[in-house]
Amino acid sequence: MSYNDRAIGIFDSGLGGLTVFKAVRKLLPEENLIYFGDTARVPYGTKSKETVIAFSKEVAAYLLSKDIKLLVVACNTASSLALAEIRGIADVPVIGVIEPGVNEAVGGRAVSAKRVLVIGTTATVNSRAYALALKKKDKRVFSVEKACPMLVPLAEEGWCSGPIAALAVEKYLGPLRRKHFDTVILGCTHYPLLKKTISAALGPGVRVVDSAMAAARSAKAELETAGLLRDPAVERTAGRGKGIGGASNLRQAGKGENEFVVSDAPEKFKALALKLLKIRTGQIMVKRF
Amino acid sequence: MSYNDRAIGIFDSGLGGLTVFKAVRKLLPEENLIYFGDTARVPYGTKSKETVIAFSKEVAAYLLSKDIKLLVVACNTASSLALAEIRGIADVPVIGVIEPGVNEAVGGRAVSAKRVLVIGTTATVNSRAYALALKKKDKRVFSVEKACPMLVPLAEEGWCSGPIAALAVEKYLGPLRRKHFDTVILGCTHYPLLKKTISAALGPGVRVVDSAMAAARSAKAELETAGLLRDPAVERTAGRGKGIGGASNLRQAGKGENEFVVSDAPEKFKALALKLLKIRTGQIMVKRF
Repeated sequence: MSYNDRAIGIFDSGLGGLTVFKAVRKLLPEENLIYFGDTARVPYGTKSKETVIAFSKEVAAYLLSKDIKLLVVACNTASSLALAEIRGIADVPVIGVIEPGVNEAVGGRAVSAKRVLVIGTTATVNSRAYALALKKKDKRVFSVEKACPMLVPLAEEGWCSGPIAALAVEKYLGPLRRKHFDTVILGCTHYPLLKKTISAALGPGVRVVDSAMAAARSAKAELETAGLLRDPAVERTAGRGKGIGGASNLRQAGKGENEFVVSDAPEKFKALALKLLKIRTGQIMVKRF
Repeated sequence: MSYNDRAIGIFDSGLGGLTVFKAVRKLLPEENLIYFGDTARVPYGTKSKETVIAFSKEVAAYLLSKDIKLLVVACNTASSLALAEIRGIADVPVIGVIEPGVNEAVGGRAVSAKRVLVIGTTATVNSRAYALALKKKDKRVFSVEKACPMLVPLAEEGWCSGPIAALAVEKYLGPLRRKHFDTVILGCTHYPLLKKTISAALGPGVRVVDSAMAAARSAKAELETAGLLRDPAVERTAGRGKGIGGASNLRQAGKGENEFVVSDAPEKFKALALKLLKIRTGQIMVKRF
């Protein structure tokens, strides 16, 4: 296997990072992907910095041991609190979700935000990672960060629309409408599952930035720049030379493979991935810490 | 220190077990208590049996290393899935919350239930521990178990009353009203925090059994039977004999001491204990696994 055939590692505290997985799969159909959900210790967003760093480093070390070529930290809490520490132990590029989300909101693309609302877990909001990244990008941007802890369990329970989700979102965001934001950053990978409810609460004038697709674009750009994109044609040729097994390589050549690993309850993860994100995971591995 | 001065260990996945702590403190004011909340890995109720057993054994081993005389597993999920495994490593009596709650509901006291609704976490309900314990106690009891996973995050967020809590409880319990239960067992130590909302949803005819007080009564009975109740008078005498330090022993003699240990975020635990349960914890220790 050539270096470029190595997988992209994607990691989240649980299920939410699958929104990033889905975006990467869509943008880079030929890449091999390995997803890790730390379901034994989910959620991260209510825990302390020390604990988030310790858990994140353990998961990152596991994915690095699988010979990945790029690591996407698809968890806003881990990206906010542990990115530097993960980079400290990684010999491959590491992408978080904060910077791509901020780039998507401010500059870069067609519309640039002036008044930004960032919603996330308590740990992400307390870290002030988004506020600092926004300020670094454009000093004139006005931003407010709001912790919405109940939205993760609501998404995990599949209560993404309906009156309970609407009331919870209203309780968090209703009092902020008077600040006339032009953009909201969904600063938690679970929140895209509640996108319609959040958008309805803020009104039609507010652009919703989902960092999942932004992170996927960032991953693609990183691989392009480093010359690390997988070229299925190369593997096809290699497969032919191998004789036995060549036929199977030929069939799989154009499409990347998916691997899913969790630290607990694989059957539950499998069912929720299908129910909430229409992802068919196939067999799921378990790695306990 | 005499053997009877040893502490009672009380353990929960997080905050919920403080309802048991409070009941034990009320019933046994002279006992020394040590409470452990596994806040780095909370919640347990959404996780697999293997993981709940592994975490519970680690916490139990820690409390046993503190030379306790009795261990109260104040977490329904751990009581349902890991009680035998905890007893396997313990050299002191171990009390769970399932059996006391069932004894409170069926027989033993004045009113005996005929039609029981048990509500709890997904893991507790899937274990069928309550159904089996009820059947063992009285074969004629009709029971239904219902998982209400959203009630833990609602309690942790402090949303114990109001329209969101009412709608969530209604969503879980509304369809069950037609079964005409006479008793509901709160099979999760978080649920007493939502007692009024749950009671309102089921109607005034339904008796609410809170296993916290039942578990505390069970702890008292266990210590009485084994002759292990703390006798402050003994320590007072011992204190006098000591000279230096005797005065302080004298002051503290009649009242037991509290010690709180968590695996993460002590400040958050401290604030929530005060806000939700009016417990002043004082300084909290941190033990990481």
